[in-house]
Order: sequence, then structure tokens, then C-alpha cells
Amino acid sequence: MRVTILAHEQFPDRAKTAQGILRYADYDVVAVLDRDRAGERVADHVPDAQDAPIVTGMDDVDEPVDALIVGIAPIGGGFDESWRPDVRTALERGCDVVSGLHYFLTEDEEFAALAAAHDAELWDVREPPEDLSVSEGVAADIDAEIVCTVGTDCSVGKMTATMELVDAAREAGHDAAVIPTGQTGIMVEGWGNPIDRVISDFTAGAVEEMILEKGDEHDLLVVEGQGSIVHPAYSAVTCGILHGAMADRLVMCHDATRESIHGYESFDLPPIETYVSLYESLAAPVRESEVVAGMLDTHHLEGDDAARAALSDFEDAVGAPATDPIRYDAAEVLEAIV
Amino acid sequence: MRVTILAHEQFPDRAKTAQGILRYADYDVVAVLDRDRAGERVADHVPDAQDAPIVTGMDDVDEPVDALIVGIAPIGGGFDESWRPDVRTALERGCDVVSGLHYFLTEDEEFAALAAAHDAELWDVREPPEDLSVSEGVAADIDAEIVCTVGTDCSVGKMTATMELVDAAREAGHDAAVIPTGQTGIMVEGWGNPIDRVISDFTAGAVEEMILEKGDEHDLLVVEGQGSIVHPAYSAVTCGILHGAMADRLVMCHDATRESIHGYESFDLPPIETYVSLYESLAAPVRESEVVAGMLDTHHLEGDDAARAALSDFEDAVGAPATDPIRYDAAEVLEAIV
Repeated sequence: MRVTILAHEQFPDRAKTAQGILRYADYDVVAVLDRDRAGERVADHVPDAQDAPIVTGMDDVDEPVDALIVGIAPIGGGFDESWRPDVRTALERGCDVVSGLHYFLTEDEEFAALAAAHDAELWDVREPPEDLSVSEGVAADIDAEIVCTVGTDCSVGKMTATMELVDAAREAGHDAAVIPTGQTGIMVEGWGNPIDRVISDFTAGAVEEMILEKGDEHDLLVVEGQGSIVHPAYSAVTCGILHGAMADRLVMCHDATRESIHGYESFDLPPIETYVSLYESLAAPVRESEVVAGMLDTHHLEGDDAARAALSDFEDAVGAPATDPIRYDAAEVLEAIV
Repeated sequence: MRVTILAHEQFPDRAKTAQGILRYADYDVVAVLDRDRAGERVADHVPDAQDAPIVTGMDDVDEPVDALIVGIAPIGGGFDESWRPDVRTALERGCDVVSGLHYFLTEDEEFAALAAAHDAELWDVREPPEDLSVSEGVAADIDAEIVCTVGTDCSVGKMTATMELVDAAREAGHDAAVIPTGQTGIMVEGWGNPIDRVISDFTAGAVEEMILEKGDEHDLLVVEGQGSIVHPAYSAVTCGILHGAMADRLVMCHDATRESIHGYESFDLPPIETYVSLYESLAAPVRESEVVAGMLDTHHLEGDDAARAALSDFEDAVGAPATDPIRYDAAEVLEAIV
């Protein structure tokens, strides 16, 4: 499938969906739309991902495109009206439009009419299935080992850690699979429950349902974590995933330069040791689980020395081996996890 | 308003919504419907609440009725088809029907048609408003003191503790108000966001929105807690309320005879001390908060000696004064809370 990715004014650092698709999805990315970086290329900014030109908008894409993917996930999940011309142009060209926003494109009258008129599909990834229910507390009964990525904040690399860990496990001969819980993971994997959009009573149940579905098909399931257990807005999602997953082991994800909660800067991050203690003690009454490895995003640090020093500090705090799965390789900590 | 309360096969112990309405709402309860207890009376089972006859069904209620309230909240929130004749009869008599089930009566074709034909209203209390959003982490900025009830499990008395605490505070001269988060609280108070039904990303935000709305009108807000922070299915709701409320103080609620999680009996309750530590350490990074009192449901214990002994043990475990607000009086611990 040939796609364009909308990431206006936010590529690359605030466009984590765009980055995830460029790195992990089996799509042929024709162009990234970012009016602030037109003329640059993906490879100028994102290592280890497929390259593509960055253009101002859909009007600058001459090649055939099957789908436009909204590659930004702003706080609150709203639709920015400045994106409307690109979505309109895409639909008029018959392109499908894929979105992980809380704002559903299918409920936008103009988009729905354009999609119908031009035989294009609107896929709102964040619309959950209707048959979800409460957790029964039985995820741990499956045969596969369950690992869950947890983190210190939003956008600290939980999705990346999940994807890189599964890739590394497969390369080492394990039959591993991702349990996708967020819009990017779902877009990459082509299935999954958008946990932040299910009704709160069903949060754990929506994770459990995916684990029960895949538990007998694989040896290792890696559940994509969300948010942070001390996030002022999103901790409910994190807590539901933690208890629904009933993981055997946890992997702590952190951004080496993050000091306060993104978008909530009056809230300092507590020490890493506090996170380890909180996640383990909160998980224990439902399922004993231990933080066995760390994944650190060091891309804001200059040079190998700084990255290795940050990793060493992080390993001390986590009390387990750690790596940066992009700068280095998730395989470095695989032995501690599987 | 004259109401009947449907509680088939579950009155009184498994009909907490019915009990809450009998105790705290300003409704005139004409009858309770429980086919297993027809001929008995509410006063045979529930102390300190308005009395009413218990009957087999709506056909046995000859007096005029304004509304039928579904007073049961089964796990999962489904509609039991054995209740259909009573709802049908109520609507045919022009009674409104109030329900806190996940299953929305307004989406049931027969009920919707009957309600339209007989000018009756269907009120699905658990349908959240559409304008909710993510928390901004600012609930603590209001002038009122914020207290949140937390608990060891579902159905351990958080709603009761909330109502009794607000009553006791008002009697002591405080301008106190309930922040209702569940179906019973909303039915009793006539407003509120059904937190277990909002989408998970907005869990904390839906609590914050209520606190910001009421914060300048009162001196003391008591947030009705839900579930338990270690519940295999519902912990997400609990965690979102804890962080959205940004409470100054917490009140720990427990049932003296509860040893495992209701409906999830393979999960033992951890020690009370573990709950205190978990709630306080989880709240702290968002808002420092302390468990300052306990509320113990002792109604399964025989006699004052057993209840006082259980309360003494509970006080030791919580590290704060405790009472049973039904057997004794919430005023006993008010000083520790306000």
C-alpha cells in the first residue's frame, strides 16, 4: 500500500505515529506532509526508518497514493482545521484516510460525503469494537509468556520498545507477537483495541480479550503500554493495561532528558526507583511482576559517551539491564526479558 | 417523586443501588420489586432507611408511580431479560424508567417504542455527557477541600461513606457536597458523570470537570470513589478518580468480612496496610494525599463487641480513626477528615 503521512508542524519529534509507521509498518511511504519542513527528507531526521520526501501538502504529491494517514496524536485527540484541505484533497483523489484521533472522521459530514462520492474509505482506528466487556482476570492463564512495556510518561518509547523487542525476539528464534493498544501500534499491526478509547470499565477487559485471542498462537506476547501510572490525565489507561495484561515481566521505558510530564510541566517526574516500586507493587495483588529491563530514549543526547552514561545511570535506577533500542539494539537486553 | 425499585433476587445485599436510594434519595419509595422476597418489607432487612413493601412485580403495585428505578448493578452491567415484563408494565402505565446499566434502555427497540407511545421517559444514568475531555491536572486549584473515598473492593461502602460523611459534615456546619461518580450517587444527587462509562482517556478529566464546576460553591467536596486500585477489572476507573480528584485527604472503605475480591474469588485482598501504602504512593506524584480515616462495613458481624473489635483492628491497619457510618455514625471520624 502506498501512503502519505500528515504530520504538519510536528515532524519528527512530536509526530510519533508518523515515526512508528515509517519504522515498523509494511507501507510504502510516498511523502510526509509537514508544511514547516517542505523540501527536507525523512532521512534528515529519523534514522533506521524508510526515507521519503517531506512536502507542503497533498497537492504536492503527484504519484498515486492509496491512503493518507494522520500521523499526529495531539493531546485530547482533536482535529486541527488546518489539516482539512489535505484530507479533502486525498478523498477527492479517491485515497482512503486513516486516523487515530478521538475526533472520528466518519462523523465529519464533509469527509463522509466526500468519501462516499469518491469511493474512498475512512478508517477511524480509535473506534473500539462494540463487543468488549469487563476483564475476568484470566490473561495469565494462557501458555505464552506475557511482557508489558511501562513508562515514566507519554511519548517515552513504549511503542518503539514493544516493536523493537518483538523484532529482536523473532530474530533470536522466538515466536513473538505485539499486543497493540494504541493508534500507531494498531496501524502498524493492522488489528488491536484502542485502549484509551474504550469505556473505562472495560479498559483491562479490552487488553485481556486480545491476549486470550493470541495466547495460544505464540510463545511470547509483548503488550504495548500507554501513558504512565502517575500521569494526571492518562493513568487510568496505564493502570487498566497493567492489570488486564497480567504480565510476567515489565520493561521500563523512559526518555533520558524528560524531567516533567509532557504538557503538564508543573508535575515533576518522580525518581525512576519510585516508578519501579509503584508498577511492581500495583501489579502484585493481581499478578506478581518484576521490572526486568529498561529501554531508554537517548536521541536527545549527543554522542555515544553521553548515551552510555545515561544508560548506566538508568540501569542503576531500574535495577536491571537497559538499552536504547534505536541507537543500539533491543537484543542487548533480550536475555533478561525472555 | 413516587418510585418503585427493581431488585429481583438481589435485595438487599446485592442491590446496592436500591439500598442507596432507600437511604439517601428524596424519593417516596412505593415498593421494592424482588420476586424472592415478596411479602417481606424493606425494614426487615435495611436499618436507617425508609420502609416499603417488597412485591413480586409491577403488576402488584396498585398505587400511582412516577418512575421505576433499576436498583441492581450486576457485573458487566447487562440487562436481565427476566426484568423485561416489569419495565414493559411500567412504561405501559406511563412511568419513567431510570437505569444505571451499561445496557442502555433508550437503545432497546421495544422500550423506546413503549416510552414514546405512553409519554414516558427513559433515563440511562450511565450515558456520559458528550463534552468530556482529558484532565488538565488542576482540580487541586479550587478553594474547597477535597476528600476522596477509596476502598479495598467494589461494594465495600464507598458511596455510603460519601453520603454519610457529607451529611455529618453538614450537620457540623460545613458547606459540603458530594461529587457523584456512579449510578447510585447520580440517581441520589440528580447530577454527575458516570465515571465507569466515560472513555478511558477522559476518566480523570470527567472527575476534574465536576470538581471545577462545584469547587467555588462549597467548602468541602467528597468525591465518591469506585472499585479498588487492585481490582482485576475496574482498577482503571479507581486510578482515574484518584488522580483526577487530586484529593487533600483519603478515606479508606472496607467490608469487615471481605477476604477476596467479589466475583473474582481467586484474588485475595492484600492487607489493609498495603492498600494504604498503594493509594498514598500512587496519589503522591500528582497530589500528596493521606489516608486520614477509615469507614468499615460491619453489618455482617453480630453484635456491638464484634463490630468494635473489627473497628479497632481496622484502625490499627489504616493508622487512623475509623467507624461504621451505618451501625454507628460518620460524625465519629469527622474531626480527622475536615
